[in-house]
Amino acid sequence: MAPVGSMLWRTLRTYQVYGANTEVGKTVFTTILCKAARSLYEKEKISYLKPVSTGPEDEADERSVSPHTAAKGRVIPSDRRLLRLIHEHASQKAASGPGWLFIETAGGVHSPSPSGTTQADLYMPLRCPVVLVGDSKLGGISLTISAFESLRLRGYDVEMILMFPDRTHGNHQYLSKYFSDQHVGLPVLALNEPPPPQGRQPSAEAEFQVMSRYYQEASGGDVARNALTQLEEKHDARVTRLESMAAEAHRKIWYPFTQQRLLQPEHITTIDAARGDFFQTLVPQAQRNSAAAAAPVGGGVLLQPSFDGSASWWTQGLGHSNPSLTLAAAYAAGRYGHVMFAEAVHEPALALAESLLAGIRNPRLQRVFYSDNGSTGVEVALKMALRATRARYGWDARDPIIVIGLKGGYHGDTMGAMDCAEPGVFNEKVEWYDGKGVWFDYPTVKCVRGRWVVEAPEAMRNEDGVGSNQEFGSLSEVFDITEREQRREQERYENYVAKELKRHVDHGRRFGALLMEPVVIGAGGMLLVTGTQNWRPSGDEEDDAKTTWAGLPVIFDEVFTGVYRLGRFSAGSFLAADADVSVHAKLLTGGVVPLCATLASESVFRAFASDDKTDALLHGHSYTAHPVGCQVALESLRQLRALDEGGRWDWAKARKSNVHASDDGSTTLSTQSGIHKDSKYRPVVQDAPWSIWSAEFVELVSRQAGVAGVWALGSVLSIHMDAGGGGAGYKSTAAVRIRDSLRRGARDDRENTWNVHSRVLGNVLYIMGSQKSMQEDIREIEELVRERLKSLQ
Amino acid sequence: MAPVGSMLWRTLRTYQVYGANTEVGKTVFTTILCKAARSLYEKEKISYLKPVSTGPEDEADERSVSPHTAAKGRVIPSDRRLLRLIHEHASQKAASGPGWLFIETAGGVHSPSPSGTTQADLYMPLRCPVVLVGDSKLGGISLTISAFESLRLRGYDVEMILMFPDRTHGNHQYLSKYFSDQHVGLPVLALNEPPPPQGRQPSAEAEFQVMSRYYQEASGGDVARNALTQLEEKHDARVTRLESMAAEAHRKIWYPFTQQRLLQPEHITTIDAARGDFFQTLVPQAQRNSAAAAAPVGGGVLLQPSFDGSASWWTQGLGHSNPSLTLAAAYAAGRYGHVMFAEAVHEPALALAESLLAGIRNPRLQRVFYSDNGSTGVEVALKMALRATRARYGWDARDPIIVIGLKGGYHGDTMGAMDCAEPGVFNEKVEWYDGKGVWFDYPTVKCVRGRWVVEAPEAMRNEDGVGSNQEFGSLSEVFDITEREQRREQERYENYVAKELKRHVDHGRRFGALLMEPVVIGAGGMLLVTGTQNWRPSGDEEDDAKTTWAGLPVIFDEVFTGVYRLGRFSAGSFLAADADVSVHAKLLTGGVVPLCATLASESVFRAFASDDKTDALLHGHSYTAHPVGCQVALESLRQLRALDEGGRWDWAKARKSNVHASDDGSTTLSTQSGIHKDSKYRPVVQDAPWSIWSAEFVELVSRQAGVAGVWALGSVLSIHMDAGGGGAGYKSTAAVRIRDSLRRGARDDRENTWNVHSRVLGNVLYIMGSQKSMQEDIREIEELVRERLKSLQ
Repeated sequence: MAPVGSMLWRTLRTYQVYGANTEVGKTVFTTILCKAARSLYEKEKISYLKPVSTGPEDEADERSVSPHTAAKGRVIPSDRRLLRLIHEHASQKAASGPGWLFIETAGGVHSPSPSGTTQADLYMPLRCPVVLVGDSKLGGISLTISAFESLRLRGYDVEMILMFPDRTHGNHQYLSKYFSDQHVGLPVLALNEPPPPQGRQPSAEAEFQVMSRYYQEASGGDVARNALTQLEEKHDARVTRLESMAAEAHRKIWYPFTQQRLLQPEHITTIDAARGDFFQTLVPQAQRNSAAAAAPVGGGVLLQPSFDGSASWWTQGLGHSNPSLTLAAAYAAGRYGHVMFAEAVHEPALALAESLLAGIRNPRLQRVFYSDNGSTGVEVALKMALRATRARYGWDARDPIIVIGLKGGYHGDTMGAMDCAEPGVFNEKVEWYDGKGVWFDYPTVKCVRGRWVVEAPEAMRNEDGVGSNQEFGSLSEVFDITEREQRREQERYENYVAKELKRHVDHGRRFGALLMEPVVIGAGGMLLVTGTQNWRPSGDEEDDAKTTWAGLPVIFDEVFTGVYRLGRFSAGSFLAADADVSVHAKLLTGGVVPLCATLASESVFRAFASDDKTDALLHGHSYTAHPVGCQVALESLRQLRALDEGGRWDWAKARKSNVHASDDGSTTLSTQSGIHKDSKYRPVVQDAPWSIWSAEFVELVSRQAGVAGVWALGSVLSIHMDAGGGGAGYKSTAAVRIRDSLRRGARDDRENTWNVHSRVLGNVLYIMGSQKSMQEDIREIEELVRERLKSLQ
Repeated sequence: MAPVGSMLWRTLRTYQVYGANTEVGKTVFTTILCKAARSLYEKEKISYLKPVSTGPEDEADERSVSPHTAAKGRVIPSDRRLLRLIHEHASQKAASGPGWLFIETAGGVHSPSPSGTTQADLYMPLRCPVVLVGDSKLGGISLTISAFESLRLRGYDVEMILMFPDRTHGNHQYLSKYFSDQHVGLPVLALNEPPPPQGRQPSAEAEFQVMSRYYQEASGGDVARNALTQLEEKHDARVTRLESMAAEAHRKIWYPFTQQRLLQPEHITTIDAARGDFFQTLVPQAQRNSAAAAAPVGGGVLLQPSFDGSASWWTQGLGHSNPSLTLAAAYAAGRYGHVMFAEAVHEPALALAESLLAGIRNPRLQRVFYSDNGSTGVEVALKMALRATRARYGWDARDPIIVIGLKGGYHGDTMGAMDCAEPGVFNEKVEWYDGKGVWFDYPTVKCVRGRWVVEAPEAMRNEDGVGSNQEFGSLSEVFDITEREQRREQERYENYVAKELKRHVDHGRRFGALLMEPVVIGAGGMLLVTGTQNWRPSGDEEDDAKTTWAGLPVIFDEVFTGVYRLGRFSAGSFLAADADVSVHAKLLTGGVVPLCATLASESVFRAFASDDKTDALLHGHSYTAHPVGCQVALESLRQLRALDEGGRWDWAKARKSNVHASDDGSTTLSTQSGIHKDSKYRPVVQDAPWSIWSAEFVELVSRQAGVAGVWALGSVLSIHMDAGGGGAGYKSTAAVRIRDSLRRGARDDRENTWNVHSRVLGNVLYIMGSQKSMQEDIREIEELVRERLKSLQ
């Protein structure tokens, strides 16, 4: 079943009525709103929906439009199906012209729905604005504020509070002031309570007349009219704003990595909200216009679900607006705000450091340094490693020191991180860029026409005159380092690197660090890499093997690849090698706030020890180790570990055929570290490489004309298109065409539209799910991708 | 009245009992806990407190310890006084030996206290762990979850949920599963309900016997014992953890800007929480030991309030754990999580851009670029300005381009930002540092022996052979740019700078930007600066005056000084000058999460326009414009504006004597921009310079022996000590000695201890309040500082 979109139409105003408690008058207020709308908007369609009811007492409700609900049947629908039914119901209403739809919830905001999900969680994707019915009874102030807070921390827009006035408790008065102080623009309106039952046993007839009169008066009064007018204004303002945001952003925002002369407002995606793996995006103008032309009355739905195919620039892995991550952020903000971290400690920072050091299972890493993003974290790593090397070899601070890196490696946009990347089109025009390194080519891995191929680096092929590609039956075989080292498969490549490095050292170049993205080169082209585990600058052999690092410190930039993105805590484990410094960000905070942790060995740490303050690592940002980020990261790691240990990825791991794991589904890492002669890597049973993208799909795509190769690992899918006539690299258009086609969206048999919002890197189209992606969604996307690949031929 | 500390003693276990609603059994459960503790901890003191009651029905409660409450009197105590009374009560209990104190709240979590503050807000500083009584009635699932969430988002540690089991609604069952899924380790325990009243009119005697039997059974049962055991374990674990955190951090954390060889665990401040302007810090071990020796039974309180005198590295300005900022963060996390920002737009990012562009009132600034912190924001500004200049003059990307800066100016720790700072002890050992600029000296401002002195820069004094200090009656006079320009006071200085710049240009140096912290040099020594508004590199005169910038673009690094830190939205307004690029961070997000906004002119923006993607500004971080940061910044700006417009700083502004403002309390800025010949600065009435630190205090301190000078502006106080025998600069010890003395703390007449956690920069001690600091706290700190300055002589 396709995902469900948010409920927004141009002329149908949908509002969800939540209650601060049961029996606060939700039904009464909804009825009044319906009746008032009937009289105020005579020519419009006014409707009412109660998708879920709590008990038989609801049956007795006298009400203008009878509830249409799937939940009353005996079969409990899935959450998505329930949302779908509501959306379809509203869609029909919208098609019939301007109007109002009031959706009454059952019980309080967190009262469970039929599936057990609380309603506040369940209805999030619909993003109906909320009318909250406050509680006027004793204790009602507390319940109303708490209900409001529960809704807010799920991203609901509470547009109005309605309640009965009560002279004894004065709740209305208190809440009016409270909300006007705290939340400007949130009106708290009071409407008189229905009269109590008349006499001891009033006749149904008498009761009906009393209530009719009550509703007549309440719905005709100023308060109800005022409420509706305000709700209409808020609806219109929301639509107007959404439709103008792209143009405003085009005028006021300076976009990252974007040539804005080539950017038109219609290329800007307006994102109203996000939940799970899906954004809710404004339907593109052209599509809105054509929908309006086709159905001039309703004008078509304005928002649609878009699969977040870049995992929000590789940051999110636990679903957007994950309530536990939100609550973790809120808890830390509420407990601390921020805490200046120099010479201070707070629980989330310490606990996170402990959790990271334990999780990474690299015995070298014993220290955690916090900064704000991958780029700053790499600069920190660099300062660490360069100093350690310089101290070891007694070089001067002004002696030029360079790094060893991978061609196409990318480590961030601050100048220090930029200087670690080899010169190319993306930095040669940057004024202060000054590449400081030697960068090597490496063997890459792709599924090509159904076979896993390890392609030798260009330079080596040239050297020998012939290509030396190797074929494997599975990714597991490719990453079975021990086995392949025993076969000495990579000896030739390692000798080549060693020879090159020696040449540089002989020319007097000083290497300060080996810096690499292990296994996957991200921004540099989403390449799967193998064979880099044994790099060593020549000359190392003289070093004291007892020190914790030999030759020079190794930095793993796991900003993108780490924290389960590729299915394991550390991407370094695919190399069976221990880094001396390791950088983690993005998924670390599950896509909520920026935070980076640079982990280092005690040996590197000690290089800064002195009695002089100026020898210290002079780096720090004011929000270093900010409690919100640390708390979110802690919760993120907890959830990821729980997914791992709880078998949440078994459906994906079961698809062994794309990795052909050993019989027990696992591979054992070598006890011998490649990079470090003295590594103490314990034998750790690691899962065989696995992916949420199925082997069948990967192989099928790999056989598609126009596709140069494909790989999938963890939640990442990377499709390399033939460079074709359009030229190689970032100017290639095949990937762009597929991306655009995916963005045009799919339409299921019930006319529900959804699309895939993905990104390209040159001739590579990648799609990145989260670590919680649902099998059914991935399957639908696989189908869509196959279809679009075919149709583009 | 001194601030109130958190409630934590080694052997007194305090728990606060909150209810999910009124009448959920708070009193019953509290009674059971008390009775169970009596029997289980026979030798201990078990006590009970109900500080606030909601109504007469409480009077009837039968309970072991009668409530001691200040709120029942007719005079409503202030929130702080109420907390103080509770703290003192508990302190007495703690002194008498091991035991338990259960504090029962009234009504629901957000039921208002006597002052009107909701209890959940009121009690935050006490940070008692919470036993939440769940609601077992219809609707109680929702109320229990919402109450829990309201507590969590104020940083409470809910340690246990107790509730009655109810077979009809099954709330206990549902909630047990819910919380074990979402919040590992939070037990949800059920205890049977008291029997209903016996017969129609039971005698008091019979009723008493029934209830006695009930309490006997309930408190003697396994559940109650289990609950207490768990609560005891949690208490002990909390104390143990707090006391070991500094040592653990010392082992595992790599601290920013810290020579860790010189750092002992006892120098590390353990921060348990923060609220308003105060941290709650672990009392230092020596003090804890001496307290334990003095009072071996209770051992003294473990936490104390510490004024956050660095405003958490200059980030916080709206009080720690400000509930509205927390809710803003939670709302955005709940609505979006994160949204990939390239070619996309979301409401908080756009609204914040609009709010910033409107607030800064600089007509040049029309574009907003987001990054993660001041350092990255400066790198962005630099890339912008260098490109704009290079494009204007047709230089090559590889031509060396440098910046013009201020001596001691500091812009962050990433390499690009570091390279903008002149060489010095803090960067000369950093391997890749390569200063790219020319840095000038400038006139500085201090209150010296009661007079405001503008001290001419060293270089100029040398040139003329004599000092050329100027004296002023007030800061307002110093910053009356128009008046002083009319008097041509700075002509000599400006000619000096122009001549120097010309010399550099004649030597072939290419200047790409003028980069400065306006008015206050922060990390470079907390210096107040004047006279930099008219800097111009010579040679500019040839430029086309019609372009929006002449000569070269000006970057204001307002990371520290902007967003009201100095009392105004923009620190640039003190220079009456418009920047072409302006960088804002720190206070922007009120001390919650990192975010930076770099604002730029359209003219600078256009320098990147081309049909080639690689000409774009190739910068971006994955969390660029993260919704949480943008939403928090929006709320932060809203609150700051409300403080400004609502007269919240009138008490400080009324202390005019330290600034001697013009009669109407305001100064009018010049319509003529200094830096820009073609500026369109509208005449804007700006407040005269003001500070939360009083003129009397500033003048008194300035007359103190050992003090070289003082200044205060906005919430910043900067005390410059004589360098003395200890040597100048960062090696001076006078400032350190005062800092340490302030950190040893004060003790008021009731033995409440509190201290000031402040930082030094070389020989400068600065204390930074928030923009919400209370007059009474600032007055107490002023007294403490004066006393400690005196005693150090």
